[in-house]
Amino acid sequence: MTSTFAPATAISSEEIFAAHDGGKLSVETKQPLDSTRALSIAYTPGVAQVSRGIAADAGMAATHTWASRLVAVVSDGTAVLGLGNIGAAASLPVMEGKSALFKTFAGLNSIPLVLDTTDVDEIIETLVRLRPSFGAVNLEDISAPRCFELEKRLIEALDCPVMHDDQHGTAIVVLAALTNAARVTGRDMGGLRVVISGAGAAGVACANILLEAGVTDVVVLDSKGILTAGRNLEGAKGDLASRTNPRNVEGGAAEALTGADVFIGVSSGTVPEEILATMAPEAVIFALSNPDPEVHPDVAARYASVVATGRSDFPNQINNVLAFPGVFRGALDSGARRITSAMKVAAAKAIADLVGDELAADHIVPSPLDPRVAPAVAAAVASAAG
Amino acid sequence: MTSTFAPATAISSEEIFAAHDGGKLSVETKQPLDSTRALSIAYTPGVAQVSRGIAADAGMAATHTWASRLVAVVSDGTAVLGLGNIGAAASLPVMEGKSALFKTFAGLNSIPLVLDTTDVDEIIETLVRLRPSFGAVNLEDISAPRCFELEKRLIEALDCPVMHDDQHGTAIVVLAALTNAARVTGRDMGGLRVVISGAGAAGVACANILLEAGVTDVVVLDSKGILTAGRNLEGAKGDLASRTNPRNVEGGAAEALTGADVFIGVSSGTVPEEILATMAPEAVIFALSNPDPEVHPDVAARYASVVATGRSDFPNQINNVLAFPGVFRGALDSGARRITSAMKVAAAKAIADLVGDELAADHIVPSPLDPRVAPAVAAAVASAAG
Repeated sequence: MTSTFAPATAISSEEIFAAHDGGKLSVETKQPLDSTRALSIAYTPGVAQVSRGIAADAGMAATHTWASRLVAVVSDGTAVLGLGNIGAAASLPVMEGKSALFKTFAGLNSIPLVLDTTDVDEIIETLVRLRPSFGAVNLEDISAPRCFELEKRLIEALDCPVMHDDQHGTAIVVLAALTNAARVTGRDMGGLRVVISGAGAAGVACANILLEAGVTDVVVLDSKGILTAGRNLEGAKGDLASRTNPRNVEGGAAEALTGADVFIGVSSGTVPEEILATMAPEAVIFALSNPDPEVHPDVAARYASVVATGRSDFPNQINNVLAFPGVFRGALDSGARRITSAMKVAAAKAIADLVGDELAADHIVPSPLDPRVAPAVAAAVASAAG
Repeated sequence: MTSTFAPATAISSEEIFAAHDGGKLSVETKQPLDSTRALSIAYTPGVAQVSRGIAADAGMAATHTWASRLVAVVSDGTAVLGLGNIGAAASLPVMEGKSALFKTFAGLNSIPLVLDTTDVDEIIETLVRLRPSFGAVNLEDISAPRCFELEKRLIEALDCPVMHDDQHGTAIVVLAALTNAARVTGRDMGGLRVVISGAGAAGVACANILLEAGVTDVVVLDSKGILTAGRNLEGAKGDLASRTNPRNVEGGAAEALTGADVFIGVSSGTVPEEILATMAPEAVIFALSNPDPEVHPDVAARYASVVATGRSDFPNQINNVLAFPGVFRGALDSGARRITSAMKVAAAKAIADLVGDELAADHIVPSPLDPRVAPAVAAAVASAAG
């Protein structure tokens, strides 16, 4: 399928492949090992004192190794970008990229761990065995609905922050963007009618965080239509069906979007123009599928006052890099064992508030490159952690 | 137990702990992510091309991720330095030190993976699941006899270089040192009578590499005395009993060392001076226990022409940092799936030959800081890999 979106700045395949030659990460020593003295401190015999110290006082592992602030970026390669189940090895360039983003924006060390198993029990077992090696787990590109069970059980199994970024990173930035879209259009969050197209990792998490943040009228669509109690859905969809759709709308996108204030697309599908035309005045459209949004932003703009995508070549880029580096940094700074809903909502508020006086219909979120974002998110998350 | 060896250069505990604050390693990005363009190359959307490329051609993972040249430094914390079974978390400072040495001497990226299980099956299973994440495994500080079974089975289970450094790193440097000790004392390797005190990881590997290199008269001692066929030993000790002790000596250290040319101590025990006095003229004594050698080098020198220890504050430091960085570098450079005996012997020869014209009784091995060592070892290993 050919994309109908031309990139703003052409980047050749040659340039992309050259930039990935040998991978994107490097492990460096913090102190040079250039003398017998340096070797004696960092390795034998000096290191024995540190090992002995940790053996006597387990808490010293947190201060005298890198593990307690090291993020493991973990994937099984089952839902890589929009490419689907392409396997662990093929997911690794994405995980290296995540690690690069963790260092660049949050100053956190991070290692990609890609797993040659898609069995939830085995993934949990593997990470439990590796527990002394890291201080947090960023789950990435793991397919739904397995990702829901995996995250939930891993949070129980590990006494450290665990977050599936495809769920919560996206949800946090969507909440931030929607907060500012409501401000721009003079609405109250509690009164919004929101339609989410897609009930995968991102859709479920978006619905949950919006409910958490006080939005009451959320309608979620999967490929078969609106999630309703009557469909007898199980798992995450069943849970959502019982907590969304308060007006008991039945049907599909057409029924859901009639009169809706907000469309959030996280489905990798498309939405017909004529349906968007039935939305409320001054609508808000977040067409977040990558690389091809559910509707071209120029088309969306005919029916909406605020339009956002996941792309860097249009205004209002909703990119989870705005969230995850600061969220993990804040969780680790605060020593939190869990990344709670309150911490996620606080992260969204910090992102939204950073826009400040520059708030406009075409500027509802900061730039992904804005260096103020991760520190502000980290501070908000740490504060919300108690 | 107080050490009777005063360090040559006093290093305070404060300095050692300060140098370990926050750990010794850092994960860095090879290219800065400081522009939309850079983000688009290293992360979405550019990275999708690389992931798609690997999905279509698995071989591309070797060239376009860091994994194929990444060494996993793996421990379960059961035999850490001379500290014993202190657990995975307490072993981590040592593993960080190893990773620092891999980068410093061989330019290799490396990550410590410490495991909260000591079950051989579980360790193998964990590393098999993580296989797409790395390109080689350096096993470290794993107790004998489990280390023998673990290494053997892991070599079968993983299609990449695997080496237990406490065995083979030590053995390679011992062979190098003994080669030069024989040169200095005008002996032929094939005619040496060698006694190895210790039948743990290092002792077994030293015996094996010496046999491989053509030494025929090797006698190995464990805590109960000489390994003999009559003791009905199993596993690695049983195997050694059947291939060593060609003169069928019975007894302990006293019987073994009478008339011996070479004593190699890898036992963390001690050896009485009166027994060393019974060795052959111009004897060779490697007292390698750390931090306390089996015999003080000044005492050993009364009975030996060549004395070596594992310590940096005496001449002839036998330190496996002379071996492992170059061995893994050579194995990875050559694309070898196995680190064979021939590659280990070639590494030892390269180390020995580097001493060159500087060969003397107090200079039988290069300095651990000599930057020529790892490249020379890597080249020799790669060449031996075919």
